[in-house]
Parts: sequence; structure tokens; C-alpha cells
Amino acid sequence: MGGITVPEFLELLPPAAALEKLLKQLPKSVLPSEDIATIDSLGRVLKSQVLAPEPLPAFARSTVDGYALHAADTFGANESLPAYLPLMGEVPMGTAPGFELPRGAAAAIHTGGMLPVGADAVLMLEYTQLSRPAELEIMRAVGVGENVLKVGEDVETGQMVLPAGTFLRAAEIGGLLALGITCVDVVRPPRVAILSSGDEVVPPEQVVQPGQVRDINSYSLSALVTEAGGESVRYGIVADREDAVKSALQTALADCDLVVMTAGSSASTRDLTARVVNVLGNPGVLVHGVNVKPGKPTILAVCDGKAVIGLPGNPVSALVIARLFVVPLIERMLGLPANRIRPSVAARLTVNLASQAGREDFVPVRLVSTPKGMDADPIFFKSNLIFTLARADGLVHIPADANGLPAGSPVQVELL
Amino acid sequence: MGGITVPEFLELLPPAAALEKLLKQLPKSVLPSEDIATIDSLGRVLKSQVLAPEPLPAFARSTVDGYALHAADTFGANESLPAYLPLMGEVPMGTAPGFELPRGAAAAIHTGGMLPVGADAVLMLEYTQLSRPAELEIMRAVGVGENVLKVGEDVETGQMVLPAGTFLRAAEIGGLLALGITCVDVVRPPRVAILSSGDEVVPPEQVVQPGQVRDINSYSLSALVTEAGGESVRYGIVADREDAVKSALQTALADCDLVVMTAGSSASTRDLTARVVNVLGNPGVLVHGVNVKPGKPTILAVCDGKAVIGLPGNPVSALVIARLFVVPLIERMLGLPANRIRPSVAARLTVNLASQAGREDFVPVRLVSTPKGMDADPIFFKSNLIFTLARADGLVHIPADANGLPAGSPVQVELL
Repeated sequence: MGGITVPEFLELLPPAAALEKLLKQLPKSVLPSEDIATIDSLGRVLKSQVLAPEPLPAFARSTVDGYALHAADTFGANESLPAYLPLMGEVPMGTAPGFELPRGAAAAIHTGGMLPVGADAVLMLEYTQLSRPAELEIMRAVGVGENVLKVGEDVETGQMVLPAGTFLRAAEIGGLLALGITCVDVVRPPRVAILSSGDEVVPPEQVVQPGQVRDINSYSLSALVTEAGGESVRYGIVADREDAVKSALQTALADCDLVVMTAGSSASTRDLTARVVNVLGNPGVLVHGVNVKPGKPTILAVCDGKAVIGLPGNPVSALVIARLFVVPLIERMLGLPANRIRPSVAARLTVNLASQAGREDFVPVRLVSTPKGMDADPIFFKSNLIFTLARADGLVHIPADANGLPAGSPVQVELL
Repeated sequence: MGGITVPEFLELLPPAAALEKLLKQLPKSVLPSEDIATIDSLGRVLKSQVLAPEPLPAFARSTVDGYALHAADTFGANESLPAYLPLMGEVPMGTAPGFELPRGAAAAIHTGGMLPVGADAVLMLEYTQLSRPAELEIMRAVGVGENVLKVGEDVETGQMVLPAGTFLRAAEIGGLLALGITCVDVVRPPRVAILSSGDEVVPPEQVVQPGQVRDINSYSLSALVTEAGGESVRYGIVADREDAVKSALQTALADCDLVVMTAGSSASTRDLTARVVNVLGNPGVLVHGVNVKPGKPTILAVCDGKAVIGLPGNPVSALVIARLFVVPLIERMLGLPANRIRPSVAARLTVNLASQAGREDFVPVRLVSTPKGMDADPIFFKSNLIFTLARADGLVHIPADANGLPAGSPVQVELL
């Protein structure tokens, strides 16, 4: 009867310090790699650096449509005093020209065409005309190398073109294939175990009885893990009993690289998580409570080299806190740089936002386009309701040293 | 010999006007839908609005750990003059309390627990103590409804919770599952045909001969299409002959919702594309040449209700222009709002950027973190080299009315 204890917040670290404390106890090594086809590598991360096996371009190419020639043959040419050169053919696309270009001659060439041996420049079509068949009238001089892409001008043989830890986007995939690199060595996705607990939580497909709520966190956190480049492994709902939590966490720790458990919403189930984690491996719980809103009752732990993150049960806190602690861990295991650029949207706050000094707040906002730019309109909520986040475009961060932010403040909205 | 003609840029529209001209000739309808599991719907777009089939929460819940009671029984209570109430039990998590709470009594309740009938408020644990076993000492008054989430306070039955066109993120997936909606009606991904042409272009796995280059665009554009929510269908490299281009485009138009063809790098192959598109359907080519750098020789066409985009052959132009014209088409077919928020990073330009007035420029930049914020460092390049983009974090847009941007200008860098 009345078996409720006040949660023990042994210390309340700010989020950045809490993350640092956690990272210090974790191995720095990046996960092992796997070889995959470059065309399937979108969103993956390079395990090792890539060196160019050959130069790009591999032959001197024209950058314009025009005429390959010796620059010296055009010197002094202008509209009132044109130069004239015999046309000795056309460079076909896709093969070597098949002829050398002697002094005093020109050859038609297309953009991307291979410069004939002898030629050292290309004159743009616009500055020429055919004065007679097979005779080119030249109305402008060109310098040596003009409108020519030299061998290796993009990339030289042996050059490091992409460092380890590169996140592969469309441009990198293009670059790799330009070099003929059809396979890449990428980091295997971190396996992230996701467990829910709470005796009131039931699977979403189940008819809920009075007092029950559906499991949200297993799925919203899975989605977040996927977005961050991890592979989520859902272990379902764990009963609020020490043996059940212990056995589930043991399995998850054995199978996965990182374990995320959302505690039930009450303090007692959170304490249960912490207690079990402390016996499962060393050093155990490092942080119990973070000075942040939402998400104060967060648990950060390490069990024998693997992180265990205990997230608050309520779905808004769970998602906000997972962005602060789970995403950075996934990124570190992927070998991504710690100072990765986060996309955001610059906006102006529409109302005053109060915050307790010393605590960091993350406030869900809706972005509204106005003639003066973007407005960030905070979404207020009584408790942490999931549709608060579904209605939000992003989060505004109120730093610890502020007593809030006045209306009109410029803010960077981190997109959800 | 010398079979090169000056490209016919009939008109050079700015990108926004060119896109508008294209969109006017295309159907406004969103693509058909398909039913998928909500847990697999990350990054998909809702075809139809979602109404709440039930309220959230479905029962009155406590938002704190404490004691359910009648607010009136606490009126006047304070630390020097506490009130006393008999404890009549504890609300178990996950089921209905199984008792009614009479006036003059309290019951222990956990965060998320179901309020017993009769109770109208919850007093936080912190303001109570057990004076005797089964007797609660109350040191603070609470108002009716305090620390209680009412039925339907997040969402009411029948309320529209997500409109058609919603891009599904972690929060929406959580919200849908909270309501027990395990299947969703999402727009099927637009099928985007990707064709490369150019007699110099060979598949990336092939050993290149002098004069040949590997196909980059098929793959970098596929990646972009995937990122934008489309399904790319690669048709490979098409020979630079009218019959080959015609037959390939016909097949692509029959099978796909949108056709993207990168012309060879020379003007003649671009003209070939335009000629063929004009006979394949009405109204044919709408825009031939856009006032933008890179990417001037872009072709926008519609063949009997489907868009055909002719992109410049060079890989940087192709990617930049695909972001301007292909991505918006995919998003429109998905039913996403036209004014979708684009993530970016606020930065300060490190050098002067010259631009021709009247023309819009997109300049690849590297972002460099400094103590004063982000610097946007332009990556200069002679011709459009693919590793220019691989080295860039994003693009800076120089509007048409600017003669460039001076060093120190604040810019929004659109991330690549």
C-alpha cells in the first residue's frame, strides 16, 4: 500500500556533460565494416578512406563545344583581323580522336570530347565561323589550356578523395562511380535494442482495456534509430518485474550494440531499471537524472562496454532525449564526426518562453512562414502528449544560462 | 565535318518561373495510395487524413506519482495545518482501479495510472507523508483537475489528427500507434525513369577507353530520387541516335510517372533530346534553357500529362538542377505541400561571390565551424567536377537581383 518512493536524482548533470560522462566509459572504436555495392550505399558511412585508383578526368577534355587547336595559332586574332585555319576533322565522342593535330590546323570538338594530341586549347564555337567548307574563321585568341580540363584536374591518382567517416550522399556515390569504384567498405549499422516496460503498456494492435495504453515508444524510437543510421531490434514490452527486466536486458546486451529501454511512466519502474542495470555489468549507472525538460528522469549506464539508455516512459520525453543521447551514440559507432552539421531553420520566436535558469529546455514549435521570414510558434502542452510532437516541425533549445527567451528572439529550430 | 550548331535557347526563364510553367501543364492529382503497416511508414506521405477513432487518453490519468483524492478534501491544507485522509489502497498500473473513491479518502497512484471514479485530482507525493500506516498527511491543497489528464485532452474522438499530405516521422508513427492505427494509407512512391545519354558514357563497372567516361548521373540521380521519396527506375545509357532515344523515352513514359534524361555533354545531344520529346506527346518542350548557373541547358517538357526533364550531362549541373525541378515534381505527386520547409544552416560567406545580374547561381560551399558561428566557404571549380559536390556541404543561392554577394554576407546554406 502506497509503495511509492521519491526518485533519487543523485545528481542532475546538464545534457552535454551527461553525454560526455557516458562517452568516456565507452569504446571509441567504430563498428566493423561490410562491403556493399556503391549504388546501394546512400546514407551509409565509409569505414575506410577512399583513394583515387586513377585520375579524373582520365584524358584532357574540352569543357565547351568548339574547336581544338594550338593556342599559338590564334594569337592576335580578333573580329576585325580574324585568323584562318583548315579544319581537319571532328573528334568523335567516346573514342580517342584517331589523329594528331598539326600546327596550323583545327578540329571540331564537343563538350567532353578528348583533345587530340597536339592541341592545347579549345576555342568556343561562338567565336568562330566556317568561312569556306573546311576553313575556320577565328575571331578571338585563346590561351594555352583554355576550355580544357587537364588529366587529374578533378582528382589525381592516389589522392584521398573521401575520408573514413564520410556520410554517403548522391554526390559521393557519383564520385565513387566516376572512379569505377563499384563496391564500398561501409560501417555496419549499429544494432539498437529497444525495450518498453510498464504494466500499463500493451502492443498497439491490442484492444486496450481501462487503465492500459498502447506501446508508442518501441515504434517511434525504432523510426528515430532508422533515421540515424542504426538497425532497430524490438524486444517488445517487458513486465515490471526484476527477473523479467534482467532477463530481457541480458538478451538485448548480448545481441545488440546499444540498449534503449523506456521505463514505465512511474518512478518505481524507473528505479527498477536502474537497479537491474547496476548488476548487469560495469560500471553500471553513470547518470540518473539530467537537468533538462522534458526528460529529467533519464538513466545513462554502461554495462561492460555497451551503453544502456533508460528513457522516460512518456513519448515526447523519450523522443527528445533519444535525440540527445541515442543518436550521438549511433553516430559515434558509425564513425561520423562528433561535430556533425545539424540542419535547422532560422526563425523568430512568437511568444515569451519561460525556463528555469540552470535547466535546458527543448520546446516543440510549429514553423509558420510569414512575409518577414519564419515564425517559431511554441506548442504548449499540459503533459507530454504524443500529438504535441506530431504537430511540431522542430525543437527550440533554451540554454541553461537563460531564464527563457523573449518573444521576437531569433532561434534555430532543429527539425524533427 | 564540324556538325555543331549553336544551341537554341529560345527563352531563358528564371528557375521558379520555369517550374511554374511546367507545373501548369501537369495534373494536380496525387498518385494512388497503398496500405502499409504503420511501423513501416517512416518517410512516407499520408494519402488521406486520419481521424481519431477514439480519445487520447482513453481514461483520466495521473500525470504524477502521488495520491488520487477529492480536491475539496484538501482545501485549506498547508504545512502548518495539514489535512488527514485515510488511504484506501493503491491504483494498480494497467487495469481499472476496481474501487470507487469516496469523499474523505485517498488512494496511491502512479504516473499514468487510471483515476478511480470519484477522484478529481492528484496530489504530488512531495506534499504528503504517511503520518500513520494507512493515513495520509496532506501539506498542500490541490484544485479540481490538478495533475490529471482528462479523457480526450490530447485528441478527441473524430478529431482530424493528421491531414492528407503529412510526411510521416517518428512522432506521427507514435501518434498513429497510440490510437491503435496499425495500417496507413500512403501515397505510392512516384516511379522516376532515369536515362543517361552520350556516346562517351559507359557503365561504371566497365574499363574505360580513351575518350570514354563512366556514367555518374544515373546513380547520383537515383540516390536523389530515393531521398526525395521516389522510386528510381534506371534505363541505362541510351545511344545518341534519334531512334534509340525515341524508343527509350517511349518505354520510360509508359512505365513511369516522370522521366529524367541526362543529355550528353554536347549541345547536339541535348538538341536531339528536345527534338524527340516534341514528337512523343503534347505539349512537348516548354522550356529550353533556364537562367541559372550551373544548369543553363535544361529542358522541361510535358508529354501527354507526364513530365520529361532533360538535365545537362555534367554531374554537378545535373544534381543541382534535379533539386530544382525533379524533387518538386516528386513532392507534388506525393501530395506534399509546395511550401515545404527546407532544412538549412545559417552561415557567413567567407569571400566575395560574383554573379551575373539577372541570373540565379547555386554555389557549392563547405561549412566550417568557427567560434563566431558557421562559415560558408565556396568551392571554386573550373568546370563541373563531381568531387566539387562531394566536397561541399551545401549550396548557397545567389538571387537574380544580386550582382553577387559580398564576403561576410549572412547566407542560408541548403544542405546537400
